[in-house]
Amino acid sequence: MLIRLGYDIKFEVPNSVPIVALLNVYQSRTQDLREPDILRVEPEVKIDTYLDSFGNQCARLLAPAGELRLYNSTLIEDSGEPDAADPSAAELPVEKLPTDVLQYLLASRYCEVDLLSNTAVELFGNTSPGWGRVKAICDWVYSKVVFGYNYARSTKTALDVYTERMGVCRDFQHLAVTFCRCLNIPARYVTGYLGDIGVPIAPYPMDFSAWFEAYLGGRWWTFDARHNKPRIGRVLMAVGRDAADVAITTSFGITKLTQFTVVTDEVKQEATTTA
Amino acid sequence: MLIRLGYDIKFEVPNSVPIVALLNVYQSRTQDLREPDILRVEPEVKIDTYLDSFGNQCARLLAPAGELRLYNSTLIEDSGEPDAADPSAAELPVEKLPTDVLQYLLASRYCEVDLLSNTAVELFGNTSPGWGRVKAICDWVYSKVVFGYNYARSTKTALDVYTERMGVCRDFQHLAVTFCRCLNIPARYVTGYLGDIGVPIAPYPMDFSAWFEAYLGGRWWTFDARHNKPRIGRVLMAVGRDAADVAITTSFGITKLTQFTVVTDEVKQEATTTA
Amino acid sequence: MLIRLGYDIKFEVPNSVPIVALLNVYQSRTQDLREPDILRVEPEVKIDTYLDSFGNQCARLLAPAGELRLYNSTLIEDSGEPDAADPSAAELPVEKLPTDVLQYLLASRYCEVDLLSNTAVELFGNTSPGWGRVKAICDWVYSKVVFGYNYARSTKTALDVYTERMGVCRDFQHLAVTFCRCLNIPARYVTGYLGDIGVPIAPYPMDFSAWFEAYLGGRWWTFDARHNKPRIGRVLMAVGRDAADVAITTSFGITKLTQFTVVTDEVKQEATTTA
Amino acid sequence: MLIRLGYDIKFEVPNSVPIVALLNVYQSRTQDLREPDILRVEPEVKIDTYLDSFGNQCARLLAPAGELRLYNSTLIEDSGEPDAADPSAAELPVEKLPTDVLQYLLASRYCEVDLLSNTAVELFGNTSPGWGRVKAICDWVYSKVVFGYNYARSTKTALDVYTERMGVCRDFQHLAVTFCRCLNIPARYVTGYLGDIGVPIAPYPMDFSAWFEAYLGGRWWTFDARHNKPRIGRVLMAVGRDAADVAITTSFGITKLTQFTVVTDEVKQEATTTA
Repeated sequence: MLIRLGYDIKFEVPNSVPIVALLNVYQSRTQDLREPDILRVEPEVKIDTYLDSFGNQCARLLAPAGELRLYNSTLIEDSGEPDAADPSAAELPVEKLPTDVLQYLLASRYCEVDLLSNTAVELFGNTSPGWGRVKAICDWVYSKVVFGYNYARSTKTALDVYTERMGVCRDFQHLAVTFCRCLNIPARYVTGYLGDIGVPIAPYPMDFSAWFEAYLGGRWWTFDARHNKPRIGRVLMAVGRDAADVAITTSFGITKLTQFTVVTDEVKQEATTTA
Repeated sequence: MLIRLGYDIKFEVPNSVPIVALLNVYQSRTQDLREPDILRVEPEVKIDTYLDSFGNQCARLLAPAGELRLYNSTLIEDSGEPDAADPSAAELPVEKLPTDVLQYLLASRYCEVDLLSNTAVELFGNTSPGWGRVKAICDWVYSKVVFGYNYARSTKTALDVYTERMGVCRDFQHLAVTFCRCLNIPARYVTGYLGDIGVPIAPYPMDFSAWFEAYLGGRWWTFDARHNKPRIGRVLMAVGRDAADVAITTSFGITKLTQFTVVTDEVKQEATTTA
Repeated sequence: MLIRLGYDIKFEVPNSVPIVALLNVYQSRTQDLREPDILRVEPEVKIDTYLDSFGNQCARLLAPAGELRLYNSTLIEDSGEPDAADPSAAELPVEKLPTDVLQYLLASRYCEVDLLSNTAVELFGNTSPGWGRVKAICDWVYSKVVFGYNYARSTKTALDVYTERMGVCRDFQHLAVTFCRCLNIPARYVTGYLGDIGVPIAPYPMDFSAWFEAYLGGRWWTFDARHNKPRIGRVLMAVGRDAADVAITTSFGITKLTQFTVVTDEVKQEATTTA
Repeated sequence: MLIRLGYDIKFEVPNSVPIVALLNVYQSRTQDLREPDILRVEPEVKIDTYLDSFGNQCARLLAPAGELRLYNSTLIEDSGEPDAADPSAAELPVEKLPTDVLQYLLASRYCEVDLLSNTAVELFGNTSPGWGRVKAICDWVYSKVVFGYNYARSTKTALDVYTERMGVCRDFQHLAVTFCRCLNIPARYVTGYLGDIGVPIAPYPMDFSAWFEAYLGGRWWTFDARHNKPRIGRVLMAVGRDAADVAITTSFGITKLTQFTVVTDEVKQEATTTA
């Protein structure tokens, strides 16, 4: 399956401001690209790209005062299969985890592992370890938290989600990620494209989405406490400890978002060009 | 100046538990070592060492049930000079910062940049940028927060310190680090040895200490909102976003600390051996 | 000036649920009523009325399953004058305050006096005591907090408002009330009718409003950190420590608000009837 | 049984400061007094006494600069029986509660009913209503929270206790009170004398104690999530929504506690005098 990906984002910039953008697909998907995946900027300014410590492709630029436009359109090949699942995937004991995975056990800004550990043990301590436990966490979060766009706020943490029981996709994932870490299961927060492929009714305007990955049986697996069922066509963009690490754009000064369009459509007949 | 460094830490371990320890000197100081810097463990167990994404020398081990002892004694050469200071050190604009420094502008578990940004601007927005601003932050935190060992708690965040105005060294640094980041000055939390060299009266039993580093004029500088004056003999061990990243030991299960001794003494006549 | 007051509120009630409503004018305004002020309920159920410890006229009822409608229309005479002000009104020292006023110095659910005391002293400790200090608090809150209906959430406290700087009218008042109490000025949160009389452009649909009262010079005075200028036509309904005490309706079970209309209009030619 | 009650409390007062003290027995116990229950103050200053809205006997005074001493010794008759219990005491539906009891269902400074409601329903929603439910709450809090004097802090709320699982007696009661209110059981926080009568080993120096009362079957019953077993010799002093309402002393300015002695001893042979 081919998926057309893209975005068109505009900001009003009152004064020149440095911006970091995580708007490319993650390194694990670059081999699937069928067109170049290049962040375009108007006006044309110098863009520095670099990999951060999580392996994310980052771009930074100094936005001049005025309107700033970030946009892109690319094409990616996808398996067309729903999220992979292996209910037999086992937890690795902490001493067997790769060292670069250990950081995903720690507390972070929006994932207060220290504050929710007892609750996690009480809720999930008797579930079967491994895949079943992560699934139990997703089921719980999915059933207990109510989705609503007007419940979004940038300061909301996993504990807030636990107490308020309302949120957007990022909030569902933060709580699930935190519960996993509380139980010594490495979990990382991710963002990416998620279209409505295979979804009978897609009720919301397209946006980037957040889901999470848990480390089981020696690899990262996709989980999504917001939708809580396998989906087709996820394209990973960035990974991190939580939303603080993988903001689509981080402005170190004042900017005002004026347009935000995301495209992620299955391409049925389009002739592909090679990247 | 030569400084003898060491520690002797004991835990009761009811059941086998994986532990990560950050008990070596930081890479920036290894060339100053005059004896090997080797974490010793009783009983003897396999120790895996690795560098984490912050450049910290980490050790991990699976502690068996019973008593666990972590200890070390090493010798390091030190300038004997107080913390370096350069009041002319300037802030770099964000777009000029090295990419690996950018992460130290973000919010983290104990440093809620998002929640304290307005306060930081109100308190320090009119101070002169650069060294003077970081100094103003340290002065403020030092004068407003009351030190007390009984004010320690593992869940205390920078916002808690701001509202409660009580804490231990880690709390002073978390608040100062957060204010720096709020003002786009990269700041990282660090731990290390800090003896009482040059301090008339050293009122407390020796412990590891926390201070912080701010990135000014193209390098990291030592600051310490707890003591707020230059000190002699700091030996850096680990750096991170906040205390969650640089815990001396992280146990992924139950352990009980039964002994905790830290040594950091100036050695006047001791013959040195070469590391 | 005559003002027509009223409301028409509907709930869906899945299962019979007890409700407490504070939907009458406060005792200080009953002598101004020109029509009866009677909470009407559909379906007709028994209503118990009582005064709570704050002097609020409360009604409670057991709502049966189905649709519940609470409505009323009454007429009140108003001075037509803007909020009274006396910049010479002085603070009473705590030892001179009436005993029933002392409770309005204490911390409450949404007013964390203990957490904001240092901040209050730092921000307002040098302002002139009395009216000027309360005014300085209102000016600060008004200038620092951004109003937006989508910033409402029922769990938001004064500290949240201080850190997030966004809110609805209740949030502005909670922060101002807290600052007053931190400085030993009794302050209470109030709700009532506030129309758009004398306001050139009234941009929002009519709602009940929240403001606050500070105790100065031996009496309660109206302040409003949300609008921060004298208004005409406030009609007080309920007073309390904070929004927890003066919720318009408190349902002890599940209800769903389906309609919410508030009327508060100046009546130019209407013939009045006597209450 | 006769119990000698008393206290001897000293403060250093740098500048004249108003103080409110709740240092008398509650009105429900005045008929048991066998000696006068009079707060004595050195130096002699005017004391105003009044009942607050919870029915507490309050005293207020203006402490001059210097040392302030508050002391008292009185004698009370007690049943000598353990806390009364009636496992058949039923919950009253909210619509049957006396109106003055309704306030004990609301959220307050240290009892965030709004934040813990879902958790309360999940933990206790399936327990039998009434006495059994309150008992289940006490059992849970008692078993999950670890007692330690060094865990005390004045800003700790029920949610903090739920996440940190450490506290002093006040913290145990705040969490239990909150859970009760979440489930529509009125609960109030109380303070009083609690000696070690009938307790084999009394490990701590005598202090005032906190427990709570739940409203079941038409009256208030004593519960104590900290000790979680019936005790002999409680003497109620003050009731309120939470610790903010019933502080033993509230100073509206700076004071430093220098002595704190509480006496509550069974009197075996002492001749009684009539109050």
